[in-house]
Amino acid sequence: MNHLTPTDLTAALQWRYATKGFDSNKKIDSATFDALLESLRLSPSSFGLQPWKFIVVENTALREQLRAQSWNQPQVTDASHLVVLAVKEEIGASDISDWINCLAITQQTPIDQLAPLQGMIQGFTGGMSADDMLQWNTRQLYIALGTLMTSAAVMGIDSCPLEGISPAAYDQILQLEGSGFRTKVACALGYRSDMDKYATAPKARFAADRVVTRL
Amino acid sequence: MNHLTPTDLTAALQWRYATKGFDSNKKIDSATFDALLESLRLSPSSFGLQPWKFIVVENTALREQLRAQSWNQPQVTDASHLVVLAVKEEIGASDISDWINCLAITQQTPIDQLAPLQGMIQGFTGGMSADDMLQWNTRQLYIALGTLMTSAAVMGIDSCPLEGISPAAYDQILQLEGSGFRTKVACALGYRSDMDKYATAPKARFAADRVVTRL
Repeated sequence: MNHLTPTDLTAALQWRYATKGFDSNKKIDSATFDALLESLRLSPSSFGLQPWKFIVVENTALREQLRAQSWNQPQVTDASHLVVLAVKEEIGASDISDWINCLAITQQTPIDQLAPLQGMIQGFTGGMSADDMLQWNTRQLYIALGTLMTSAAVMGIDSCPLEGISPAAYDQILQLEGSGFRTKVACALGYRSDMDKYATAPKARFAADRVVTRL
Repeated sequence: MNHLTPTDLTAALQWRYATKGFDSNKKIDSATFDALLESLRLSPSSFGLQPWKFIVVENTALREQLRAQSWNQPQVTDASHLVVLAVKEEIGASDISDWINCLAITQQTPIDQLAPLQGMIQGFTGGMSADDMLQWNTRQLYIALGTLMTSAAVMGIDSCPLEGISPAAYDQILQLEGSGFRTKVACALGYRSDMDKYATAPKARFAADRVVTRL
């Protein structure tokens, strides 16, 4: 398997930035974009519950509508691809059962051997308030967001996370209302424009001694 | 710059799993671990505010104490490295000012040019309840967690995210009480043991048609 060296990884992460200006003529090829979608699908989540849906918005008219609900940020329409990350609001007994079935089939494990795990997940999630569950699920979604942006960077793909959006308007435009999923954040993916002045700005981060402690 | 191909990336993410059994004799070399810490430090966050602290726990006695507060999960002591991800509870005026100063110095921008951005961040954060801010900051921390695990995978390093910990006990052991930071999650990093039965289990995920929608 091919890996990145520490130097390669750091270079890729230094190169990455929240791309404001995308080159609208440059498209991510389908093999690369499929790998980005796989990075989302393979993301880790608590208990493996995958409380999420990823919506790839290809329709130009929809992207225009979404842009109007995103402070008119041009990334929404100009980037090669736009992915909306939606959270599953609730994890109920049938979701847990779906997950246990998925595990049983994939790992060829008799379902009754997974009963203790199923009970444990049910006990854990059953004790949560609706709001706590939504927050917990949303945190898992942000693992997927981090996975996506890092996966993009190591393949030389630009990205811009978009929190400055109107989730309720997105839900309406994407017809998520009543689906059990809610828009939380989006991510534009593609190639930086030569004109983006932010592309060459040095990356600003606090020094390591402020954010890292060794005990 | 060296990148991964789509095939390489997918292979690395398929290879990754939540490692339960680490080989306690295998240590991550310092260049590789430094790159992992850099991946955390360089993680994207909303407005660039970096509401986090990363605590590398090297002390064996501390790791034993933390393990006792982590359902006795062996990863806490057996993995080469343990990183605790702590969230900054509040973003106040001085934090925003620190960030604006960091931007000004790094990007050689006169500070008064950044006043509109500073005002915007202050307006946005000033309208949040303490709980909303904590949740928002914690979501940013989970971007860093996703960045860390993906960065590890593409370098061939194993990881295990640890949510099943007692954050309050961690805060006490790591002396975070009163610091403005709170433990939220941890991540063990190192090399899988040949004995870990989970290492060879096929990765279980819902099919793409369940989690991905194209519009």
